Amino acid sequence: MKLYDTPLAPNPRRVRWFMAEKGIDDIEIVTLNLIAGEHRQPDYLAKAGVPNVPALEMDDGTTITESVAICRYLESRYPEPNLFGRNPEETAVIEMWMRRGEMLVSNPLMMMVRHTHPALAALEAQVPEIAEKNRESGIRGLKLLDRRLAESEWLAGPRLTIADIVAFSGVDFGRMIKFQAPEDLAHVGRWIAAMRARPAAAAGMPQAQAQPA
Amino acid sequence: MKLYDTPLAPNPRRVRWFMAEKGIDDIEIVTLNLIAGEHRQPDYLAKAGVPNVPALEMDDGTTITESVAICRYLESRYPEPNLFGRNPEETAVIEMWMRRGEMLVSNPLMMMVRHTHPALAALEAQVPEIAEKNRESGIRGLKLLDRRLAESEWLAGPRLTIADIVAFSGVDFGRMIKFQAPEDLAHVGRWIAAMRARPAAAAGMPQAQAQPA
Repeated sequence: MKLYDTPLAPNPRRVRWFMAEKGIDDIEIVTLNLIAGEHRQPDYLAKAGVPNVPALEMDDGTTITESVAICRYLESRYPEPNLFGRNPEETAVIEMWMRRGEMLVSNPLMMMVRHTHPALAALEAQVPEIAEKNRESGIRGLKLLDRRLAESEWLAGPRLTIADIVAFSGVDFGRMIKFQAPEDLAHVGRWIAAMRARPAAAAGMPQAQAQPA
Repeated sequence: MKLYDTPLAPNPRRVRWFMAEKGIDDIEIVTLNLIAGEHRQPDYLAKAGVPNVPALEMDDGTTITESVAICRYLESRYPEPNLFGRNPEETAVIEMWMRRGEMLVSNPLMMMVRHTHPALAALEAQVPEIAEKNRESGIRGLKLLDRRLAESEWLAGPRLTIADIVAFSGVDFGRMIKFQAPEDLAHVGRWIAAMRARPAAAAGMPQAQAQPA
């Protein structure tokens, strides 16, 4: 298998984080330079179908994009530690929290960054109202997570799962514009600190990318 | 099990459609009136955790929201016909197309409706620029689906899957503001007609809700 990856962007980081939690180190990683447009080259588009990173090329040559689809596939090949659920009931609760974390927190915070950070102005026209709406949405989502984290160590239960990785990817991406979760969300603050303290957090950082082990 | 449902909204429709494809008819359906605020009543919030519909109450009392998490759980209980994949490779391709359909098509078209339709102005302040951005995004997504549907009968392969149901939910919701897919997207046009012709399409219509069999 081969993983097409890029530093800095939040979605590829989810897969690197997921792999680090599982200790997966036997997949070839190909780092694409998005600034140089390597994700828009014909060879890559023929594989991935879309100019998106990450992409996973399976052993049979099938290539898939979408970070969560890639992670779920990796879970089938590297089952431990379990990050998607051990039975249908647990899987359902984890997927629910993953989707809440993605739709209510990560996506709006990523949109906030995209419509704010000067370096991303080249991607599409930035609209201040869109940035602000998404900031408000992301904070509403964080309040929901705070209520959840008041009663649960991790988003989906007593252990870290894909839900935490997906939700955190957007929160941490907000650092690009110095976004911080409101300080009164103490449980979110505790969770953010716990995420940053995981060894896997380093797998998402550009310096780790620049210095592959 | 008990499904908390509401007519008109696109996410509950996914679950009804999914159940109809599988012929599931032995789950109690509780219809909530959102205009009357039944999804904000303490009893419902205590179960669902959020004022969102649909929600599925499992036999053990656990209640989950999120249409896709509900559908995946139902697949574990009612495996045929298979709509999520029969092995990890197929599951990965289906999830990839489901997420592309959701993120690139359904979500933007739903946002377009939310920021356009007069009846939804009460939900949040409508911003014409957000409506327009999302319309453009949705059409870009439909162009991707058109290229895919030029080579595949359904989004994820030779049979209908959860990917089609999720992508179509947003497209059809666009009808609320008379949105139509661009006519030059012939493969999308063929697919939309095929979706509307499925017996399960009726399970999503308000009249089917008002007249339960």
